[in-house]
Amino acid sequence: MSIVLGSNRYGKAENRIVRIYRDTPRHEIHDVSVSTALHGDFAAAHLVGDQLHVLPTNTQKQTAYSFAKEKGLLSIESYGIDLATHFVDHIEPVAGARIEIEEFAWERVVVDGAEHNHTWMRRGQKTRTAAISVEGTGPAQQVWVVGGLKDQVILKSTGSEFAGFMQDPYTLLQPTNDRVMATSLTAGWRFMTTDVDWEAIYAGIKQILMTQFALVHSLALQQTLYRMGEAVLEAYPLIAEIRLSAPNKHHFLYDLSPFNVANNDEVYHAADRPYGLIQATITHDDASDAGPAWDSYAGLV
Amino acid sequence: MSIVLGSNRYGKAENRIVRIYRDTPRHEIHDVSVSTALHGDFAAAHLVGDQLHVLPTNTQKQTAYSFAKEKGLLSIESYGIDLATHFVDHIEPVAGARIEIEEFAWERVVVDGAEHNHTWMRRGQKTRTAAISVEGTGPAQQVWVVGGLKDQVILKSTGSEFAGFMQDPYTLLQPTNDRVMATSLTAGWRFMTTDVDWEAIYAGIKQILMTQFALVHSLALQQTLYRMGEAVLEAYPLIAEIRLSAPNKHHFLYDLSPFNVANNDEVYHAADRPYGLIQATITHDDASDAGPAWDSYAGLV
Amino acid sequence: MSIVLGSNRYGKAENRIVRIYRDTPRHEIHDVSVSTALHGDFAAAHLVGDQLHVLPTNTQKQTAYSFAKEKGLLSIESYGIDLATHFVDHIEPVAGARIEIEEFAWERVVVDGAEHNHTWMRRGQKTRTAAISVEGTGPAQQVWVVGGLKDQVILKSTGSEFAGFMQDPYTLLQPTNDRVMATSLTAGWRFMTTDVDWEAIYAGIKQILMTQFALVHSLALQQTLYRMGEAVLEAYPLIAEIRLSAPNKHHFLYDLSPFNVANNDEVYHAADRPYGLIQATITHDDASDAGPAWDSYAGLV
Amino acid sequence: MSIVLGSNRYGKAENRIVRIYRDTPRHEIHDVSVSTALHGDFAAAHLVGDQLHVLPTNTQKQTAYSFAKEKGLLSIESYGIDLATHFVDHIEPVAGARIEIEEFAWERVVVDGAEHNHTWMRRGQKTRTAAISVEGTGPAQQVWVVGGLKDQVILKSTGSEFAGFMQDPYTLLQPTNDRVMATSLTAGWRFMTTDVDWEAIYAGIKQILMTQFALVHSLALQQTLYRMGEAVLEAYPLIAEIRLSAPNKHHFLYDLSPFNVANNDEVYHAADRPYGLIQATITHDDASDAGPAWDSYAGLV
Repeated sequence: MSIVLGSNRYGKAENRIVRIYRDTPRHEIHDVSVSTALHGDFAAAHLVGDQLHVLPTNTQKQTAYSFAKEKGLLSIESYGIDLATHFVDHIEPVAGARIEIEEFAWERVVVDGAEHNHTWMRRGQKTRTAAISVEGTGPAQQVWVVGGLKDQVILKSTGSEFAGFMQDPYTLLQPTNDRVMATSLTAGWRFMTTDVDWEAIYAGIKQILMTQFALVHSLALQQTLYRMGEAVLEAYPLIAEIRLSAPNKHHFLYDLSPFNVANNDEVYHAADRPYGLIQATITHDDASDAGPAWDSYAGLV
Repeated sequence: MSIVLGSNRYGKAENRIVRIYRDTPRHEIHDVSVSTALHGDFAAAHLVGDQLHVLPTNTQKQTAYSFAKEKGLLSIESYGIDLATHFVDHIEPVAGARIEIEEFAWERVVVDGAEHNHTWMRRGQKTRTAAISVEGTGPAQQVWVVGGLKDQVILKSTGSEFAGFMQDPYTLLQPTNDRVMATSLTAGWRFMTTDVDWEAIYAGIKQILMTQFALVHSLALQQTLYRMGEAVLEAYPLIAEIRLSAPNKHHFLYDLSPFNVANNDEVYHAADRPYGLIQATITHDDASDAGPAWDSYAGLV
Repeated sequence: MSIVLGSNRYGKAENRIVRIYRDTPRHEIHDVSVSTALHGDFAAAHLVGDQLHVLPTNTQKQTAYSFAKEKGLLSIESYGIDLATHFVDHIEPVAGARIEIEEFAWERVVVDGAEHNHTWMRRGQKTRTAAISVEGTGPAQQVWVVGGLKDQVILKSTGSEFAGFMQDPYTLLQPTNDRVMATSLTAGWRFMTTDVDWEAIYAGIKQILMTQFALVHSLALQQTLYRMGEAVLEAYPLIAEIRLSAPNKHHFLYDLSPFNVANNDEVYHAADRPYGLIQATITHDDASDAGPAWDSYAGLV
Repeated sequence: MSIVLGSNRYGKAENRIVRIYRDTPRHEIHDVSVSTALHGDFAAAHLVGDQLHVLPTNTQKQTAYSFAKEKGLLSIESYGIDLATHFVDHIEPVAGARIEIEEFAWERVVVDGAEHNHTWMRRGQKTRTAAISVEGTGPAQQVWVVGGLKDQVILKSTGSEFAGFMQDPYTLLQPTNDRVMATSLTAGWRFMTTDVDWEAIYAGIKQILMTQFALVHSLALQQTLYRMGEAVLEAYPLIAEIRLSAPNKHHFLYDLSPFNVANNDEVYHAADRPYGLIQATITHDDASDAGPAWDSYAGLV
């Protein structure tokens, strides 16, 4: 029995890059946090501290900023593919690269009824995400792209039940046929191809998720999530699978009866912790292998 | 020289109340964090641990939840006045009360082009705020109301300079005639009256702040803030004063010249810390006394 | 009625300075976050965007870093006085300066029973704080120093009651004669002089606060806080006043009776929100005027 | 090609349980955040909203609190095993369970030189962690235990180099032979057995990690991490593997030369983002299969 180095990777996390397009008076803004991770022939750095094969994380950072201009930063999926393939193709010891990106949304300030050319408000805590993994070079090169969103807080004030559940000696919960259901949705969808209109599909998936959350009469958060994912896969056959993680942000009906005040599902306490947490994958049954697609690095996705 | 009890107050902070209006199929939601603070004749609790005059913080909580139904929770300023005056008017030892409220904004999910009746997305990290202070009872009772917003992140990608500044031996900064200017605005405006259309004025002030931020060609963040505040006071004579606190969220132009890549104000690094921090009050010269209006309790406002 | 500029200040917030003393093999570390704020004759910057009198916040930052070497960074109170008086004495338009400092504690790693010379572990989320305000120049110059600590989480598992409190129609709370009491203490103490052994007095006050929290049989958090503050003022006549802010971090006894499990004050739920919040000042009755001592700028103190 | 439900699980996250042992006047405290996740035959809940097999997350919560008394809460690994096996053994549809636990450390307040019986200060942001996965019932049951710690911030002010690294056109970094090295360590170690003195081994591993960080002359963070992990595996053959994730919290030497101030590795800027991020596994070459051991659920570990 001997001790050996197992899997390892390194990179620069949370590069806060802002890219302004200013070719016309109507500027565009792309505001991202980018993390890069490389793996490959780096054993010497671990075992004996030899950096000869180590591309500094500072270099990875410089590259990420420079590529925002060299390659452009319009769709984060596309930018991530450019960055990942660069490291794999041009840095000899690199066998694979992973790029994780969070994009912060901005909306234009409206002045006198018109969107302003160069002034924005930050839009929500929700972020769009992408994770790109590239392995190998030449014809054997494989690319995995996962698009997504996270921290999309949504709530419905009716149309949600929870009843008929299992009982054991620790079960005190009462069934309900009308409750507030809220979650802070994190979703990732894995593409089968890179020949994608990234902007259109992001907007389309987001709309489907929101629509299904609104329209499905919910018997359980599990059921709602499944329908949301199923609708995405029905609409987009190029999505191999979608993974959803949804905290059940509990809203407890507040008991006002001691004060002789009726509470007809009107006043709730929004609890912080604990929260339910539902995670589910909805997949095409012939989906390609996920490979390293979901191997989270810096927690941005 | 003896040791005495000075100013003191106590209450329940960050009650997370959600109020749903469901009288029609089109529900309304008001999602708030409410803090209550009381001061008055509470020396015995401090000096000898006698609680006879102490209304428990739990009771303050119960009242806050119950008032969301009893009095309604439409405008936070109005709800806060109801709650504060209740404590001052009906709890004997209470000389004054302060209510601080944060309101989290939601926007309706749009399904097939129409706003949904009972499904929302949380809108941004920006929150609306209110702080209500009530002192005294009967004809001598005084009420101060401060409305506001906080964490409104805004950015303009041009139309901002910083030049002609003072030099000393520690001054290394180079002047610039075109920069990205961004801040996370916190603003509070003090009313001279409580006879106010709270919703209309909140929307109006927010629009003025955004419009001025967009339209003013900025020579300094100080100047932009002054114009923003001045425009609010010009539009609303019932505002006694407005206080603005604005971190200068630095966006540094990234040096790509080592890579022979031109960066024509296109690629920036968004820095976390340190940040500039500008604070200013713009006031009517005959504004009434601020009293305890700005005496922050739980940090919600 | 005209619109005028009211009070205003500006500076650089949260400079993250780490100062290593390495004159001997046993290094020392001081790890701080420093905010600087200046006020004075800056109306032109606000009114017309004229920066001629504005010392850039970047310059304030450079000065703060350089002073860590020039003046040293041993006691944060002393460093803060040096920095504040520099701005007031040497920058013409500056009428007053405020420096707020948070210091992060480190403890040495122990190797084979001995403290290591140059390796540390970060010690807790608790931080030591200081706020220095300097107004005016020459003989009329005044200096206020507030030392403090924040986010010191403390808990006692017995020796705390809460009973005999006021009742109103919203009062549901049951009295208790044995509860868990916990808080995250923030304290600030104002000095009457600057001729102080800053390190000794910080250690002394912290010990007194912890000791009193442990030893006082608590009838209310108010009473505990008063005793803590009183003991500090008794021990240190050079302290004019101490201000304490203490969230009551509720620990609710968990009801295990449905499972026929006895819970003799053994299993609690630690709640996040809401929380009680007690604030009190304990003061010498002849304390000097507080002036701007408590006028918080960046929220570090 | 059809759409199917893939892997899924659900549970209650971040139950904030505090367990006091008060059998003698010298109390003991265990303060934890516990997350439970179940997987198994739950397809009906997803596909048709049928809850018949769903043990509510509320029930999981009740069980977690009750087990703090029924089974005790001394070592988090042991408590987690009890809880996981309960769900797998007694809840019919459950095929496997995962328990993730964070434990917050407290240290006794010292009064007059003696540790106090029932008063504590919270100790640091560092937490101890455990993740327990149990799959299957009866003789086929398998149990995986991962112990760990997270957010252990450590720093050394000398004894760290970074030089001799790879160069490419984006490489601007200068080599250094003396730097500040700091990280916020997260580590997890997987046990080959459950017959373990959990307290002793946690203390032992933590000491080894700190000692190696202090003693290894670092040529790269990678090398330091490898030595830390190797030393743990050498000391504890019952550890199958250890995984380390270490952000390189950059401390940049501050340039004081414009002010003619010498900075001999004494004044640094502590940067927030971006940061390097090094992840490595050190393993016994014959380690048993990791199974679901590292399949993080609620992010507590």
